Amino acid sequence: MGKVDSIVLLNTGHGKGKSSAAFGVMGRAWARGWKVGVIQFVKSGKWKVGERKLAEHLEIEWHTLGDGFTWESTDMDETVAKGKHAFSVAKEKLSSGNYDLLILDELTYAVSYGWVPVEAVVEAISNRAPKTNVIITGRNAPEDLVEIADTVTEMKKIKHAYDQGIRAKKGIEY
Amino acid sequence: MGKVDSIVLLNTGHGKGKSSAAFGVMGRAWARGWKVGVIQFVKSGKWKVGERKLAEHLEIEWHTLGDGFTWESTDMDETVAKGKHAFSVAKEKLSSGNYDLLILDELTYAVSYGWVPVEAVVEAISNRAPKTNVIITGRNAPEDLVEIADTVTEMKKIKHAYDQGIRAKKGIEY
Repeated sequence: MGKVDSIVLLNTGHGKGKSSAAFGVMGRAWARGWKVGVIQFVKSGKWKVGERKLAEHLEIEWHTLGDGFTWESTDMDETVAKGKHAFSVAKEKLSSGNYDLLILDELTYAVSYGWVPVEAVVEAISNRAPKTNVIITGRNAPEDLVEIADTVTEMKKIKHAYDQGIRAKKGIEY
Repeated sequence: MGKVDSIVLLNTGHGKGKSSAAFGVMGRAWARGWKVGVIQFVKSGKWKVGERKLAEHLEIEWHTLGDGFTWESTDMDETVAKGKHAFSVAKEKLSSGNYDLLILDELTYAVSYGWVPVEAVVEAISNRAPKTNVIITGRNAPEDLVEIADTVTEMKKIKHAYDQGIRAKKGIEY
């Protein structure tokens, strides 16, 4: 493996802005002519989210849990199988050398839900192509991910509009 | 004033992602066909930042400290005068009714540096057009701003690449 010239960012915590910040960086990376890929580990029910529309407009590659997945097994929960499949897609892209930035949105849930062992995530990140920067988002990041990340931010909720009965706003939160 | 159908988001704290998250939301708002305006209260030395390139590509209005400013006074520090000017631009736009979203990037510094009293900021936000959502970013948000915001997130630094001697990366941080 060559010299690593990339960083790993981790946005965790219970506050807002974890994914928004990742998509803000997606825009910067695009502006610099980088090759960017996005893999979403939790599929939004809100078809189609604003960030995905933006990515399509910018011709940024986008994969969502279940994309390209063919259901064959009968002895595994389908969501678990989709989660494992999404991770195998991520793993292949991490090592491919084809990306300047990969956004693994809400990857931490794939670990918390037990779809993917944290060791496999650590290994895939550690064995990534040297030039590939990575952003991981999601609550409750396991300590092993904090360990291997270069920059870790906890988005801490001080106050949330939800708590005052204000529903999630299209255009702001998705 | 009509019924307020907009929210105020505040991203503060010493961690990364305050402005990135604002620019992520900028992308979502754009995807929904919203009219968006950005006012940056601290001018980056890094001409021209990625987020600004993205905004131009998306035809989003962008103003940076000092834009359209004509220096006339001799008895005021030029930076202070530029800061006050940027705030007067923001104030006019907040009340204009022309925007679905206004991003006041690093506005908190205009308050900490003493360019603009916090009361004036609170007043401008409170008297904004009912449909205009607002995102304010910057460290050390004064309590009065936390008060009037609907959603407040503290971006808390757990770990930062800087601390390991890794410099700010183009494509990631600007």
